[in-house]
Amino acid sequence: MAKTIKDPEQHKKRMQAIKSHVDKRIAKAQEDKGTFVLLTGNGKGKSSSALGMVARALGHGMKVGVVQFLKGEWNTGEIDFFKQQQGIRWEIMPAGFTWETQNRESDIASSQQAWTQAIEMLTDPSFDLVVLDELTYLLHYEYLNEDAVIEVLMQRPENQHLVVTGRGASEALVALADTVSEIKEVKHAFKIGIKAQKGLEF
Amino acid sequence: MAKTIKDPEQHKKRMQAIKSHVDKRIAKAQEDKGTFVLLTGNGKGKSSSALGMVARALGHGMKVGVVQFLKGEWNTGEIDFFKQQQGIRWEIMPAGFTWETQNRESDIASSQQAWTQAIEMLTDPSFDLVVLDELTYLLHYEYLNEDAVIEVLMQRPENQHLVVTGRGASEALVALADTVSEIKEVKHAFKIGIKAQKGLEF
Repeated sequence: MAKTIKDPEQHKKRMQAIKSHVDKRIAKAQEDKGTFVLLTGNGKGKSSSALGMVARALGHGMKVGVVQFLKGEWNTGEIDFFKQQQGIRWEIMPAGFTWETQNRESDIASSQQAWTQAIEMLTDPSFDLVVLDELTYLLHYEYLNEDAVIEVLMQRPENQHLVVTGRGASEALVALADTVSEIKEVKHAFKIGIKAQKGLEF
Repeated sequence: MAKTIKDPEQHKKRMQAIKSHVDKRIAKAQEDKGTFVLLTGNGKGKSSSALGMVARALGHGMKVGVVQFLKGEWNTGEIDFFKQQQGIRWEIMPAGFTWETQNRESDIASSQQAWTQAIEMLTDPSFDLVVLDELTYLLHYEYLNEDAVIEVLMQRPENQHLVVTGRGASEALVALADTVSEIKEVKHAFKIGIKAQKGLEF
């Protein structure tokens, strides 16, 4: 799937469509409207930052949708915490980490299933904030067609905020986003042998 | 205050004390113990990432303490949200942003007051996670003595996690932390005229 992503003409066409979208957006920037925040880079803090924005939005009485790609059945503090809150829909991609499943066919099926849930949120104006956690990996591995994803992100309700996280965000995602932070690892406790800590990493 | 910070001998002594602390830490790294995460850099996502870790920790039933330096009386989603949760103590430095107050004496008094609350958390083993949001600014402006702060951070209960956020973290803080992320601004919606958005920035 999505082999045309690497086609130069296709790439050019996509980037032009994004540029046109962004130009229109800048022209109307003074209005209060949905902002797309992209959190990428190899450092710690991308998903946790998205979760912090979920907390902020809930604090303002906003309705929030979260799709966690790649989390599988892993038990995390954020799930236990946010599932009991009001005003949130939380979806987790079935099946574990892709590097655990080792099965491209089933990974693609799981990705499509989770993406279908994301589309429901991204086409529903009642959601004030949508978080697509770790989405970039699915695009990188071409489990989802990036053109199709970009199209849905561009067409989302105009007052809906969007947060996308994950390493290695593509040029197209960076171009489309309003705010982009690259979270760089300066050092990481894992590297001196400290294991993943409850409450910090999960 | 804290003028000795720029003294080379003092600096060397401090860095040696930190190195000795970190060496001991690495030697015992396999144990499950408190990790110090430092989130710095000029991009969006530092405080929100800390808030995400608060949510994770609460989800695991951990006790959390938060001190927000520089937030003043600003009404934020995170305050409305987290204040109603169980297992959290949340303190906000009195008086507004320092660049609003323009009064060094009162800023120092407010800083000391907030730091005293932080010390209560950092010396109480019942807190599993302590967040010191925007602490770096107070050190940068020398509202707090960095040596005294570093000493308290090093002496905290050994299973207590710590998250410090803010731009321009000092060499000493970077040296002391287990995990350091630099959040770089690639682009920011503010720069194209989009104002701070409820649910994302506050």
